[in-house]
Amino acid sequence: METTRGKVLTPCFMPVGTQATIKTLSSEDVKFCRAQMIMANAYHLYLRPGEEVIKKAGGLHRFMSWGGPIMTDSGGYQIFSLALLRKVKKEGVEFKSHIDGSKHFITPEKVVEFQRFLGSDIMMPLDECLRYPVSRNNVEESLKTTLDWATRSKNRFKRPLTDLAGVFYTPARSVSGPGIRQRSMLFGIIQGSTYLDLRKRSVEETVALDFDGYAIGGVAVGEPSELIHEVTEYTADLLPEGKVRYLMGVGTPLDMLDAISEGVDLFDCVVPTRNGRNGQAFTRQGELQLRNAPYKEDFAPIDEGCECYACKNYTRAYIRHLFNTDEILGLRLVSLHNIYFYVKLISASREAIVENRFSGFKKEFLRKYKK
Amino acid sequence: METTRGKVLTPCFMPVGTQATIKTLSSEDVKFCRAQMIMANAYHLYLRPGEEVIKKAGGLHRFMSWGGPIMTDSGGYQIFSLALLRKVKKEGVEFKSHIDGSKHFITPEKVVEFQRFLGSDIMMPLDECLRYPVSRNNVEESLKTTLDWATRSKNRFKRPLTDLAGVFYTPARSVSGPGIRQRSMLFGIIQGSTYLDLRKRSVEETVALDFDGYAIGGVAVGEPSELIHEVTEYTADLLPEGKVRYLMGVGTPLDMLDAISEGVDLFDCVVPTRNGRNGQAFTRQGELQLRNAPYKEDFAPIDEGCECYACKNYTRAYIRHLFNTDEILGLRLVSLHNIYFYVKLISASREAIVENRFSGFKKEFLRKYKK
Repeated sequence: METTRGKVLTPCFMPVGTQATIKTLSSEDVKFCRAQMIMANAYHLYLRPGEEVIKKAGGLHRFMSWGGPIMTDSGGYQIFSLALLRKVKKEGVEFKSHIDGSKHFITPEKVVEFQRFLGSDIMMPLDECLRYPVSRNNVEESLKTTLDWATRSKNRFKRPLTDLAGVFYTPARSVSGPGIRQRSMLFGIIQGSTYLDLRKRSVEETVALDFDGYAIGGVAVGEPSELIHEVTEYTADLLPEGKVRYLMGVGTPLDMLDAISEGVDLFDCVVPTRNGRNGQAFTRQGELQLRNAPYKEDFAPIDEGCECYACKNYTRAYIRHLFNTDEILGLRLVSLHNIYFYVKLISASREAIVENRFSGFKKEFLRKYKK
Repeated sequence: METTRGKVLTPCFMPVGTQATIKTLSSEDVKFCRAQMIMANAYHLYLRPGEEVIKKAGGLHRFMSWGGPIMTDSGGYQIFSLALLRKVKKEGVEFKSHIDGSKHFITPEKVVEFQRFLGSDIMMPLDECLRYPVSRNNVEESLKTTLDWATRSKNRFKRPLTDLAGVFYTPARSVSGPGIRQRSMLFGIIQGSTYLDLRKRSVEETVALDFDGYAIGGVAVGEPSELIHEVTEYTADLLPEGKVRYLMGVGTPLDMLDAISEGVDLFDCVVPTRNGRNGQAFTRQGELQLRNAPYKEDFAPIDEGCECYACKNYTRAYIRHLFNTDEILGLRLVSLHNIYFYVKLISASREAIVENRFSGFKKEFLRKYKK
C-alpha cells in the first residue's frame, strides 16, 4: 500500500497510540520494533490536546515525533463506548466528554476535517459500532446511519478543503526529508454485526462509494470466537481484490494468523501494550505471566532468541522484580517486547505468503505456541 | 577515582537506582545520559528481590544490565526512616520490613557481606542517620554506635570472605569485556548532625580507620540551608586530601555547585527522577513545571540546545499533553532530560575546575538559572 509517507507492506500490524503515544514507548522504541505504520484516535485527540494544539504543532506526526504513516480512527467506537449522554441525530452525534463532561456535537464532515488537521495518512469515517448481541432491527437502523455518514464523509473528503489548502506537514525534527503535502486516504467501514446478509448489503453500498480501502468493523465486540471468524471470512471475501482489508481492533497472535488466512491485510490492537503493562508477554512458546513466582529465579530472556532490547539486555527474573516493585521500566520492557513480537510475527507471515508457504508457517507457529 | 569497573572522573553525579533501576529509565537511557556510576540501595535489594536472586543472577550489575561501577548504600538511612518497629542493639538492628512486616536482624558484618554479594564497587557501612533537629546527647550516643559499626564493617571487609572467594561477576551480556573479579571499596560515613565538634570527632575517629573514601552523611535531613552549607564545608575541610568526598543525598543544581566549591567530589540524589515524574524539568534557565497551562502551545524543547533524546525529539507542549493524559512516556522523557542535565552540569563543572575557571562558571550558571 502506497501512502504519502512511504510504502506499507501487508499484512501489517499497527501499534496503537490512542493519545498520540504508543503507551510506555518512545517513537525510537516503536521504530526499533520496525513498526511501519501506527494508529491514533481522533476522538481522544479531539478532546486532548485538541485541534488548536495539533494544528499549531504542525500536525500529529510532528507533535508526536513519528515520521512514518499514521492511520487515525474516527473515534466512532469511542463515542459509542466511552462518551456520556450520547444522542445520535441525523446530522451527527451529540455527546459529553468522558473526561470533563463538556458537551460536543460532531458530524461526519467535521470528523474528516479534524483528521485532515491531524495530517492523518489514512482516515476513517465516523460510523456506528454496535456491541454483540444486538437485534436485527437495530443493526438495520444503524447501518442506514453508518452508510449515510460514509457518503457524507466521502463527499467532504472529495471537496477541496480550502481553509486547509496551505497546510503543509513537515516531518518532526528527528526525521529527515522535505515537507510533505498532505494527500491522505479515506477507508470505508463495513458493519452489520453477525447478520451475514446485512454485512453483504454493507459491503455493496460501501464499496459503491469507492473508498481507498475497507475496514471490517464491529468484529470482536463480545461475540464468540467462531462468529468472529465466520463474519471476518465472509466479509473479507466480498471485498474488492485490489484494496486493502483492515480488521479493526483484532487481536491475539492466533486471531491475526486466522484473519490473514481469511484475507485480511491490516491489524491494530491494544493487546500487546495493554497486556504488556499487566506483565503478560507473548513468546513463540506461548504467553507468559511474568509477575508469577516461577520467574523469580528464571534468568532466561522473555523469549530465547528474540532480538528486542528487552530480551537482549534483561531476564525474566529482573522483569518480574520490576513488576513486583512497581517499577515503570517493567511496563515498558514487556510492551516493547510484545510490539516487537507482533510486528515480527506479521512480517514473518508476509515472507511466508510471498514464498507460498503460509499454511505451513502458521501450522508450525501454532504447534509451538500451543504446546 | 579508580574502580574495578573503570575510572570515575570527579566531581561526579550518580543517578539513584534504589531498586536496581533508575526509575523509568533503561540502562541504555542511563548510558545515553553519560552517567559514569550509579547508586543502588542494599536495604531495598535485601528485601526485594533478596540475596538469593541476585546471587544466582551473578551479581547486581548483571541483574540490572549495568556494566559501569555501582555504589551501594548500606540502607542505614532506610532502616531508620522506612522500616517498622526498629530496635537498635549493640550487635545490630532489628526491624520489620516496610513491605510485608517480616522480621529481620542485621549486623554491620552482614551488610558488608550482602553488598559483596551484590558485587558493589563501592560499599557503605551500616550507620545511624539522625534527622534534624536532634539533641546533643542523642547525637553523641548515636555516634558511638556508628563508629563501632564502622570499625566492625572495616574488619569484616578486611577479612577474607572465604565463602565468596569463588564469586566472579561477569558483565551483562550487552556489555563487552571479560569477567571481573570483585575488589570493591568501602567508604566511611561522617555523622554528627549540626554539632561541629561532634562532626570533628566523627571525622578523626572514622579517618583513623582508613577507608577508601568518606561520605558526609546526616546532611539535608531537615535543617535550614545555611546549616547544610556550614556543616558540609566544615566537614569536607577536615577530610583527607587524597580521598574522595561524597555528600549523601544532595541535592538541587545550586546545592551541588555550592558543595563543589566546598570540596565535595561525589553526589547522589533522587531529585532529577522524583521531580521529573512530577513534571518538573531542570533547564539552564531554571526549573519548569511542564504540567502548567503556559506550556500547552509551547513547541520549544524542554531546554533549547540540550542534546538529550527528549529535547531533540519532543516539545514542551507534547510532554505537557503526556502528563495531562497520564501517559507514562512523559515521566520517562522528563526523568531522562533531568538526569542528562545533572550529569552534564557536573561534568561541565569538572571541565571548569580543570581549566581553573570554576567560580566564573558557577557565577554564570547562577545568573541564568535564577533569572
